[in-house]
Amino acid sequence: MSNSITVRLELPARVTAVSEITTAVADVGGMVTAVDISDSGTERLQADLTIATYGTDHAAEVVEAISGVDGVEIGRVSDRTFLAHLGGKLEVTSKLPIRNRDDLSLVYTPGVAKICQAIAEKPEDARSLTIKRNTVAVVTDGSAVLGLGDIGPLAAMPVMEGKAALFKRFADIDAFPICLDATDADEIVRIVKALAPGFAGINLEDISAPRCFAIEARLRKELDIPVFHDDQHGTAIVALAALTNALRVVDKDISDVKIVMSGAGAAGSAIMRLLLRAGARDLVVTDVDGIIHPRRADVMRGDNGNLAWIASQTNQDNETGTLKEALVGADVFIGVSAGGILTGDDIAKMNEDAIVFAMANPVPEVDPVDAGRHATVVATGRSDFANQINNVLVFPGVFRGLLDAQSDHIDDEMLLAAATALADVVSADELNPTYIIPSVFNPKATKAVAQAVQAAAEARLKGSS
Amino acid sequence: MSNSITVRLELPARVTAVSEITTAVADVGGMVTAVDISDSGTERLQADLTIATYGTDHAAEVVEAISGVDGVEIGRVSDRTFLAHLGGKLEVTSKLPIRNRDDLSLVYTPGVAKICQAIAEKPEDARSLTIKRNTVAVVTDGSAVLGLGDIGPLAAMPVMEGKAALFKRFADIDAFPICLDATDADEIVRIVKALAPGFAGINLEDISAPRCFAIEARLRKELDIPVFHDDQHGTAIVALAALTNALRVVDKDISDVKIVMSGAGAAGSAIMRLLLRAGARDLVVTDVDGIIHPRRADVMRGDNGNLAWIASQTNQDNETGTLKEALVGADVFIGVSAGGILTGDDIAKMNEDAIVFAMANPVPEVDPVDAGRHATVVATGRSDFANQINNVLVFPGVFRGLLDAQSDHIDDEMLLAAATALADVVSADELNPTYIIPSVFNPKATKAVAQAVQAAAEARLKGSS
Repeated sequence: MSNSITVRLELPARVTAVSEITTAVADVGGMVTAVDISDSGTERLQADLTIATYGTDHAAEVVEAISGVDGVEIGRVSDRTFLAHLGGKLEVTSKLPIRNRDDLSLVYTPGVAKICQAIAEKPEDARSLTIKRNTVAVVTDGSAVLGLGDIGPLAAMPVMEGKAALFKRFADIDAFPICLDATDADEIVRIVKALAPGFAGINLEDISAPRCFAIEARLRKELDIPVFHDDQHGTAIVALAALTNALRVVDKDISDVKIVMSGAGAAGSAIMRLLLRAGARDLVVTDVDGIIHPRRADVMRGDNGNLAWIASQTNQDNETGTLKEALVGADVFIGVSAGGILTGDDIAKMNEDAIVFAMANPVPEVDPVDAGRHATVVATGRSDFANQINNVLVFPGVFRGLLDAQSDHIDDEMLLAAATALADVVSADELNPTYIIPSVFNPKATKAVAQAVQAAAEARLKGSS
Repeated sequence: MSNSITVRLELPARVTAVSEITTAVADVGGMVTAVDISDSGTERLQADLTIATYGTDHAAEVVEAISGVDGVEIGRVSDRTFLAHLGGKLEVTSKLPIRNRDDLSLVYTPGVAKICQAIAEKPEDARSLTIKRNTVAVVTDGSAVLGLGDIGPLAAMPVMEGKAALFKRFADIDAFPICLDATDADEIVRIVKALAPGFAGINLEDISAPRCFAIEARLRKELDIPVFHDDQHGTAIVALAALTNALRVVDKDISDVKIVMSGAGAAGSAIMRLLLRAGARDLVVTDVDGIIHPRRADVMRGDNGNLAWIASQTNQDNETGTLKEALVGADVFIGVSAGGILTGDDIAKMNEDAIVFAMANPVPEVDPVDAGRHATVVATGRSDFANQINNVLVFPGVFRGLLDAQSDHIDDEMLLAAATALADVVSADELNPTYIIPSVFNPKATKAVAQAVQAAAEARLKGSS
């Protein structure tokens, strides 16, 4: 459990001491999962207790409860997540042994010179003779990290390291975090272009909207390797895959349903785009100011190109009003916005066999239990409910496919292929309202996505030759 | 051997066939080091022969010789260096296992959020909670790669990967290659500054002079992590260490000897600077235009600040003329310039007990065998002669020391400390004209350099507090 703590304490050497502590912990809702006696005397013991808690505040409550046990003294309290992060999460290792001078002259000078020469003569050989082929840069400026906002490049490192670890775990891709101390979009584009030679793909991460749109668009245009902003397209792919299966559960067609979205940022815009490509026609997008439509004051002002684009591509009936109003009679709700903005009553006003994806984290747009009383399918971004919509299902496979195809770009066909493949990992036998999307540890998921993206990319290469 | 090849061939199944081939290879100076029979029939065999050769041309000669053996057919010829480089030389791995959802929420969301928050609140904690502490960027623009010149960032990758592999092997440092598609010095400074947050040190590599001076100077001033251009300072440290021991062999003092240098580029300038800091007084530097002095036309024009600086700091007797003229009566020659510019006769005109460091690669400034007829100590940059002056002895230890001290900069005191420590690895018992510098595989070397640099850096931190 990521909220597990280890408490070092001194306690009297009486028979009931440990059980008194365990009870005190349980009384405030914690659970002792391990006891190590680290030192013992005739009258006192020193012990390390590992305790599962619900979070930082709860952990403090647990420690407080222990300190109330007669004769117990609290020592150092360690958080398991912090312990795990000591020294960071990645390592860069050599694939070749360097045991002697012979190895040295193979890996480095003078042997390496002929490899350099070969690449200088034929640049495309860098894909076979260097790490380029299997290496992805995970690039951020730290401007929109998780739900934490603009915490900067240094504080973004743990997320980017984690992302790189997931790339390795799920797709055997060597990914490296590049956390940029830069805020200007043009500057970020220049930097990423400059460092691109050693990479076969760029994964943009946690860059705030609307800058992320311009940065991605320019990099895609100017680089000869694929550029993928996971917050946008990873989310869009997994959402479309989940929706595909949810629609199978309720036996509705994407071209017939009314879809209402909450959130017009990076994720919302990308989901909207992909839904339209997948055949959705009746789509209404809302943000904090309600339904987005061409006559809305901020859209008319024209200072947000993304908003204008949404207004021009959605809302066929020119609806106006609030999210709650838009939701009346809708078949699908997709939220990538803020927690607790809807109630069960709002979901009750949707069409029969409603589908609710409340993906805001950590608090969903609507309580999934309340939503479940009125909707047929409910999904969230959380791992403690059924139907977790998690990008980890997508980005490793997308890049695996792109790298294996040696693709020089990524396009909507590949995103659609990934979504279809991911949806199809759930077979007709397995499909039900609580299982519309595979688990992140389902080994078929990444493989299916990778194969689909590779095939789509290779079809593109053939098509262009 | 880095020039080893593997030849697949078909040969007749006669008893003498393999020995005929081995003899044919030996006749042209090659050596069969392994024979694998990969397939066998009643009349024909298929075999893979691994053969040590002296280089690409010699390998072609060897293959030609084999094809002359009766009944032999040559298949695919593979170069061992190319085979070793397939897929590149580095891997990025996760230190933590990701086996289940619990691991996932520890390494990535939601657990990682509190690590990010902790760093956002206290940026210095990034050293303990991320890979920053042990991570170095190996940065190049590919403008002066080995002796190959400006081959660009992509073709420079094999060298930078090799360098990163050596960092890991010799100092357990996680280094990552950053090969920049940028040529403007200001642009390179901006990029390196922007990507610095995730690193604890910057190793500049193979950037051409004089741009490398300005780039390093500005980065040192503007960054809060040490910046070290290995071509300059790594070379200077190892040269000073070797000179220290060579002077011990001939029992001369650095402050008394006349030192003549050939080469005023990145390495030459850094060596000159460090020699002066180490107490050298009589120093004459030459380049392709001869001895550098204040009245030389190009120095007077003032368009090369580095040349002006050399002229102002060396050549106390205002010598003019050629390298060969400068060398008459000199005690020490240090070459970091071009191959074959001196003969044994030139060395013969030096002072008694002359010291010659002919470090140009692959061809030294003077043939080391010819030099050895007249000089007491001869060193080169090559691994096939005694006294190899190799940066691998230095850069891993320098960065290990800087990282362990969590140093925010590097200065000349640290470089001098590194040189002294490296020289002292050779004990008085071991010291002789053919052993003035330890082998790169001497485990004491990196350790000694690291400890010396760490101590110097920590003394600096204490001094400033």
